[in-house]
This record gives sequence, C-alpha cells and structure tokens, in this order.
Amino acid sequence: MASDLVVGIDVGGTNVRAAVFRGLRAAAGHTGTGPEVDRAIAEAVRPVAERREPVGRDREPDHLVPRLVGLVQALLAEAGLSDQEVPVGIGFAGMLRGEAGLVVRAPHLGWHNVPLGQLMQAALGARHRVVVENDVNAITWGEYKVGVGRGASDVLGVFIGTGIGGGAVSGGRLLTGGTGCAVEIGHTKVVIDESARPCACGLKGCVEAYAGGEYLQRRARAELAGGARSAAVAMAGGAERVNPGHLDAAAAEGDDYALTLWAEIAPLVGVALANAVTLLNPNKLILGGGVLSRTPVLREHVIAAMEVAVNPPARDGLAIESAALGDDAGLVGSALLALGAQSSPGDGLEPERG
Amino acid sequence: MASDLVVGIDVGGTNVRAAVFRGLRAAAGHTGTGPEVDRAIAEAVRPVAERREPVGRDREPDHLVPRLVGLVQALLAEAGLSDQEVPVGIGFAGMLRGEAGLVVRAPHLGWHNVPLGQLMQAALGARHRVVVENDVNAITWGEYKVGVGRGASDVLGVFIGTGIGGGAVSGGRLLTGGTGCAVEIGHTKVVIDESARPCACGLKGCVEAYAGGEYLQRRARAELAGGARSAAVAMAGGAERVNPGHLDAAAAEGDDYALTLWAEIAPLVGVALANAVTLLNPNKLILGGGVLSRTPVLREHVIAAMEVAVNPPARDGLAIESAALGDDAGLVGSALLALGAQSSPGDGLEPERG
Repeated sequence: MASDLVVGIDVGGTNVRAAVFRGLRAAAGHTGTGPEVDRAIAEAVRPVAERREPVGRDREPDHLVPRLVGLVQALLAEAGLSDQEVPVGIGFAGMLRGEAGLVVRAPHLGWHNVPLGQLMQAALGARHRVVVENDVNAITWGEYKVGVGRGASDVLGVFIGTGIGGGAVSGGRLLTGGTGCAVEIGHTKVVIDESARPCACGLKGCVEAYAGGEYLQRRARAELAGGARSAAVAMAGGAERVNPGHLDAAAAEGDDYALTLWAEIAPLVGVALANAVTLLNPNKLILGGGVLSRTPVLREHVIAAMEVAVNPPARDGLAIESAALGDDAGLVGSALLALGAQSSPGDGLEPERG
Repeated sequence: MASDLVVGIDVGGTNVRAAVFRGLRAAAGHTGTGPEVDRAIAEAVRPVAERREPVGRDREPDHLVPRLVGLVQALLAEAGLSDQEVPVGIGFAGMLRGEAGLVVRAPHLGWHNVPLGQLMQAALGARHRVVVENDVNAITWGEYKVGVGRGASDVLGVFIGTGIGGGAVSGGRLLTGGTGCAVEIGHTKVVIDESARPCACGLKGCVEAYAGGEYLQRRARAELAGGARSAAVAMAGGAERVNPGHLDAAAAEGDDYALTLWAEIAPLVGVALANAVTLLNPNKLILGGGVLSRTPVLREHVIAAMEVAVNPPARDGLAIESAALGDDAGLVGSALLALGAQSSPGDGLEPERG
C-alpha cells in the first residue's frame, strides 16, 4: 500500500542520501512502550531501499537540483513506486523560509534564495508531495516521533558535529519560528568581551566558534603543531590528524592539554545549553552529533556545567538523553515530516509548524 | 450577553486587581487594521468594572486565597454577573505547573505548591471557569491578541520591572514549555566567570541580577551613598531615593556615573535578548515593564547591543516594539486566556498551550 511508504532525503555538506521507509506512519503512532513497540519502530526506521552519492564539487543549484531529482527518481523506480502516491521529505543543511521550501542561505553549498521545494515538486510531479525542512529540525522531529524523544511534549535537540545545530518541539509542534530560523543555538553568544572568537556567521562569541567540530579541530591541530604537547598527537599519528575523539581519549587518560581545553570549552557549551533549556523548558534534552557522540568526557563536563547554570525549575522537569537514530536520523525525520504534512491534523503525525 | 463578559485578575507582589471586560472576544477576533479596529480594541481593553486592593502583609495562602475569592465575588456581584457564566482568568506572578493552576513557587508571596486554580474554581463554582497562567505569559498573550503583537505568528515579550520576565507565542500558541516554566529570560546567564553576581534564584550571573530594577536600584543607591558622584542624586533628592528613571535622565545629560553603568548593563541585557531571539525567531520583540518604559537611553543602548549579537537571519525578520497595554496588560491577557480556554479551537482565541 502506497500510503505506507515514504521517501526521506538528507542533503548534507558531504553526501546526499535518499531512502524509502515502510511502516513509519504506524510506528510513529504507537503511544505505548515495550519490546514489541521497540521492535516495530526499529523495523520502521530501517530503510527498505537507499541511495547515496557524494555532493561533489559542482554544487550550484543548476547542477545539484537535477541530480537530487535524478537520485529520487532512480530510487522510486528501483522500488517500483514511480507511479504511486509517495510523499518525499527533504532535510536540508541550510536556512529555509516559508512552507514552500525556499533555501535562503546554505553556506556549505554557496546557495542563496533557491526555491528547492518548488523545483523538486515540479520535477517529481503531484504524486510525490514534497516537504523541505532544515536538517537539524528534521533530525529533532525524528527523535521526537520515533527516537529518544518519544512521549515528551517538549524536546530540545542539540547536535555538535562540524558545527552546532539545534531543533525543538514545543507542545507537540516543530518550533520553526516566525521566519523559519528558530533554535540556532550554535549562534547564541557565550563570550561578549573583546576576546570573543570570530565565527563564520560574521559575528563573534558564538558557541559554535568554540565547540563546533571544525573550529575545535582546527584550533587543536594548530596549537599542537605549534608546540603544545598532548597524548592526542601520538594517538592520532600526528598533530595534523588529531580530531575531537583523540582529544577526548587523551582527556580520559589525564592529559593536561586536553583537560585544559575541555575545561575551557565545557562551560561555554554548558551555558548555551542551560540558557536554551531555561527558555524552552523541554522535558527532554537530546544530545547528539559526530563530535558529542565520540567525546564522552567532554559530554560529561558539558552536562555538569549545564547543571549549575540552568534555571532550577526547568532542570527539575528535564531528562538528558543521547540521540538514538544515529546517521539515519535526518532521513527518518524528513520522511516523518513528509508523512505529517500529508496527514490530517489529529492523527499524531501532523508536524504543526509552530 | 454573558459570553461577551469576562473577568481578568492580576496578582502581583504589591496589588491584587480584578476587572470585568466586555467585547474582548470580538476585539481579539479582528484580523484587519485601521482606525475602526483600533477603536474597537481600545474600547474592549478598558475595564467596565474594576476592584483593586493591596496584597498586604498577610500573604499565606490560607488568608490570601479567600481574599482573592471575595474580591472576585464582590466584583461579579457589583456587575450583576454572579449567576451568569463568566470565565475568570488569573495572571499570577509565580511559577506554575500543569493545566489546573498549581502554584509551584511564588517567591514574593512565600508560596509553595498551592493549588490556586482548584481552590478558586471550587469557591467560585462551575459558572465561573477559572484559568491560571504566569503573569508575564498573560501579559505577552494580551499584547499578542490585542496589543502590539497583533498580526504576528511568533512574538517574544520581555519586561524589565522589579525583575526580568519573558513570555513567548510560537506559531500562535503560548509557549509554556514542558512543565510550564518556559521563557524565564531573567534567569539566562550572561556572566559565567568568577565575577558573576548572585541572583535571588540561588544561581549566579543571571541577567536579572544585573538589570532587574530591584538589583539595579539597590546597587546604584549603595554606590552613590558610598561616594560615587552622579547628577541622579540631586534629581532624586538623595542617593537613597535614586531609581532607574533618575539614572536614565542623568545619562541623557551625559552624566559619567550613569553612562558607565548603562555601558556595563546594556551589553548584558542585549546579549540575553539576542540569544532569545536567535532561539525563538519571533516576528516581534515586545519590550516593556516599569524600568524599560522609564529608561529610554538604556533601552536604546540595549537594542544596539542586541543588534550586534543576534543571529542575522533572525534579525532580518524582526520588528522591535514597545508594549502597548501598560498596567492593564496582565488583566487583559488573563481575561483573554480565560476566553480562549472556554472557546473551541479554531475561533482564534484558543491559547493552545505549547
């Protein structure tokens, strides 16, 4: 049955992935818990068909959009779904505006004002209703519907990878903001004196400029190449190969350099999380992303720093969880958003932009 | 017609006020603009009957709740509404939880876990459906429905008076958070080093501990009594009478002390606002409260500091407004929340807790 099938797409800075899911609607509808529900969800979040390709060098909309269309068409054809009514959800790493999927800005692709949703909709035809959402919002929605956010009314997802992104669900609705750029926690300011580090966004003192994976790695490599000593260098096989995971492993062994770095960074991430929790008052704070999932020592310090800065009443109601859907979260979340946009309100799938 | 009438109550730290409004439902339903709509709204937000009394010294729930009940009953009797179906909305300065109006904490009254909504509902009877909401949330809801927030989908209200409070509407819903304590912007942290000032909440570095009226006034009076020189002292008629309005008037005349104080405080308030706007992405930022409405110079510096710290895409979509409903905002907002809770979804009044 076609209504049981949906396509999720994840457009990141490195890869483009597209997958077909079966049974996500039913899985998201389960309100109970227990091994059977867990099994049904685990099955539903596993793609029944998938394609992936590198974004590559040619990133202009004129080249990339047709390739995205081709990827989805090939996937649909392969799965025998080309002539069936299958919605398509796109999680996109960029700033969007409005309901029609306008990409206002996507720094890693160099895009400005690209009507991605409209272009994809026109190419795929009316049988494939297209929904576009910011990738971190899609991930958060996925965690909320079928991941560790299940059962909460309000969740905040914070993902530290190359950069720092956030998404939130408030009262069962995706919190998109007035112009679609809410929960940009990576660009909340944590240093406001003259020492504030510059961020690629053009401003200074953003938490991303301290703890985003790219900044963190670049800084550590430069300091270690410049003579700072750390066990991370030997672990990595050279200063120029050190990544946050090496730094965390060194910190776990009591390495001075790594511990000092974590002691500087953890309070900054902690206060950014604390302020977001104080403002949004989620039931669940979901932490994930390529950096945080590989840096357990940093994660522990960050949570400790958050605890002493968060408004106590907001802390009382809060559970802290690790993201559960992993690398497929963007695919699953955008697929769920596509199902929600297609469904009628009240069946529990409607994302109800808020 | 009874459905046209509603009671709003404002329970603050100093006074308790209760008022009857007529025509609020229709006023909140206007979607257009123009002088006729403005006139209809101006008329609807003016109470047709009002009572007020000081909170006084005896603030225990056993004493104050019966007094609140008596106040409302007297007002209803005076207006000839005792036996009619008139909803009652209560805006309460404290931390609430759940739909039934449980006061978890109200520092200025010394209350802990008082089931205010249930007590009021039992006393007033089924004809008077009772709704309780945090006072700043009620004020923000009032500004959103019939004040300067009209027409926006997402608003953030920030009010600097004795303390600093905030409220938000997201996608047309009051943002209450998972446990009813969202948007506590006064307790977001703006200083995280050892110099962070202690706040009455028990933590340190909260923006309220720098810019809340009570802290600000206490600090300035102490510094001026201790020998600091400022034109504000002569304006006030003594260091012990200086208030933020005097300081702002002195700053407007180039007074060194006041300008230095504003230069320290404005960036802290500015970054708190910037971070909240970056997270919530409102269309309108509504500024108000007893301090901000009397300190135009500080307000200007705060906005300038906010501009350089806010995520640029969130700034693009933002209008900054001054609160329009003044001292009656809490009465109007809680009355509107009572109408919303009584109405069916879709008529535009439903507050739809989110």
